[in-house]
Amino acid sequence: MTTTGKQIFTTLDPNGALTVEVAESEFRDPTGNQVLVKMEAAPINPSDLALLFGPADLESAEYSDGKVVAQMPEPFLSGAKGRHGKRMPVGNEGAGTVVAAGDGEAAQALIGQRVACVPGTAFSQYALADAAMCLPLGDNSAEDGASAFVNPMTALGFVETAKMEGQNAIVHSAAASNLGQMLNRICQEDGMGLVNIVRKQEQVDLLKGLGASHVVNSSDDDFMHQLRSAIDETDAYFGFDPIGGGKTVDTVFKAMEQVAVGKMSEYSRYGSNQQKKMYIYGRLDLGPTILTPSYGFGWTLSGWLLTPFLQQAGMETAARMRKRVLDNITTTFASNYKRKVTLEEMLTKNAATEYAAMKTGEKYLVTPWG
Amino acid sequence: MTTTGKQIFTTLDPNGALTVEVAESEFRDPTGNQVLVKMEAAPINPSDLALLFGPADLESAEYSDGKVVAQMPEPFLSGAKGRHGKRMPVGNEGAGTVVAAGDGEAAQALIGQRVACVPGTAFSQYALADAAMCLPLGDNSAEDGASAFVNPMTALGFVETAKMEGQNAIVHSAAASNLGQMLNRICQEDGMGLVNIVRKQEQVDLLKGLGASHVVNSSDDDFMHQLRSAIDETDAYFGFDPIGGGKTVDTVFKAMEQVAVGKMSEYSRYGSNQQKKMYIYGRLDLGPTILTPSYGFGWTLSGWLLTPFLQQAGMETAARMRKRVLDNITTTFASNYKRKVTLEEMLTKNAATEYAAMKTGEKYLVTPWG
Repeated sequence: MTTTGKQIFTTLDPNGALTVEVAESEFRDPTGNQVLVKMEAAPINPSDLALLFGPADLESAEYSDGKVVAQMPEPFLSGAKGRHGKRMPVGNEGAGTVVAAGDGEAAQALIGQRVACVPGTAFSQYALADAAMCLPLGDNSAEDGASAFVNPMTALGFVETAKMEGQNAIVHSAAASNLGQMLNRICQEDGMGLVNIVRKQEQVDLLKGLGASHVVNSSDDDFMHQLRSAIDETDAYFGFDPIGGGKTVDTVFKAMEQVAVGKMSEYSRYGSNQQKKMYIYGRLDLGPTILTPSYGFGWTLSGWLLTPFLQQAGMETAARMRKRVLDNITTTFASNYKRKVTLEEMLTKNAATEYAAMKTGEKYLVTPWG
Repeated sequence: MTTTGKQIFTTLDPNGALTVEVAESEFRDPTGNQVLVKMEAAPINPSDLALLFGPADLESAEYSDGKVVAQMPEPFLSGAKGRHGKRMPVGNEGAGTVVAAGDGEAAQALIGQRVACVPGTAFSQYALADAAMCLPLGDNSAEDGASAFVNPMTALGFVETAKMEGQNAIVHSAAASNLGQMLNRICQEDGMGLVNIVRKQEQVDLLKGLGASHVVNSSDDDFMHQLRSAIDETDAYFGFDPIGGGKTVDTVFKAMEQVAVGKMSEYSRYGSNQQKKMYIYGRLDLGPTILTPSYGFGWTLSGWLLTPFLQQAGMETAARMRKRVLDNITTTFASNYKRKVTLEEMLTKNAATEYAAMKTGEKYLVTPWG
């Protein structure tokens, strides 16, 4: 038996035409520890946008009912050779109700329950999901549970990573995001120092209103001074950056090194012995990362992704993190959305150009049943 | 009692004038485990040049007898604030004869012996050195022993680092250098895979002549193909780069990722799961390091310096490495020099502009007594 429903697919042709469209799909019955979830809400995260549109030109794209055709520029067209011609479902996470389950015990236990899930095909009316990765939401709404995985586990993952590496403070850039707000709450709960870097006064006010101690504004004339002071006060030589391109990481390394050099009694041509570490976990800016030779050799820059982190951290840590998320889904781990859209509305020009800009406070929620 | 002799000093004024000159110095008697070494030979390494001249303009500098005055450009002038106005000795390493020693047992044992040492003041007729860091050279000449520390321990340090991190192969750029040739010999002795990146056919021939299996030429049209093949054959997802600025590291990460993606059965928007790691250990190019978003999030880039590495590796490993160097000082760890210069000749325009260009095969040896 199969269930039919609407679903979004993205296809990149070798000639550069990117087609994103709503189509009817057939969903086969779940087997083993799979469940079939009737999807009620799914957030559009930056990590979804990378696959959905990538850097395709949405301004000059052709929009028709439930369909967008946009041009993918180079070098991204060649860089995505692996997906050329492949019709790919999209949507990392979401929430809905389990309407069918495989024979497995874990799957059977979820029948009729509302769950958060991580199917990778969440922009859809139905999705097959792994029962082991589902989080039963109890009385919480699908909207409350839709973002229970990516942002909460990532923000918690940062704090876990910091603890594993013996750090007591974190620098976070683009810090007014939904994820950044969560990170603020987690760090306050855990006594982890946090230096928030934002670029607008209203974002400073927002985070200060949430109780953040250190918020620095990159648009202020004395930004470097603010950043150095915050690093000095927190001893944060460790951080996370979702921007990737440009000089954000470079600026943070510079400020860290300047604080460390200020504490040295003797000049060293090699810079300070203070180890500095930054992780890039997103690509809000697809331009190149620029690292200037201004902070010696005591630094490490690395990519950070949730799935490899969870594999490395192990089942026990992951389970503890998931329980903490579920216990605090409407408080510490609450997300906010600017607008709800159906699958078809998601592919209109107004909506697509707005959420694809990934501006702070403009996250969208997809509600596939309206 | 004091000993007098000539020594080179470098001074950077806050106004940007960099003065490098030969001056008479007084050397106090060694105490404790110090020895006084009559310096006979000292190599000019890239790490010395960073302090000696940095990126100062040597073409339009004023040269007089035993003196150079050059202008230091921004942002390097401001970046070196810690040394403004300070008269600094230069020269990491060298070899000479111990002419006086402190009361310590280790120091006394070296009297009259020829040693390699790491005084940090080696461009001088005399230097005070730590006996514990001296390597008795036996019958070897000062020229043979002059480069017994920086390059040999760095090249060995790369192989030690690779082994510590569970790697079986190394990518090395600018691989035809003295250090690169040593690394070739070490890797052959230890069965460590090595991908040598060079930029001239004559360097390919040189390394092939030394028995290197994988030498790729960045000036060839099919360079990326050569690099991918070499990475595929050696499984080298780990490497060292002395260039720093520009796209060398980026190119290596790209090639590693392309090899890894070629082995994946399914497309992933996040790239391969293959962890890729590169260390920058020098700054032959002082321009910014450029990292493009072309290899997912499974990469790490880090600075690498000898002293922190040795501290981390521990005394036992360092002692084992030093013994290996001494046992093979004229074979595995032999260095070659283009020219010998006195302290005064070192500060002539002809010499300075040549060795400061840090070209392969153009290393200089300072012989302070002529």
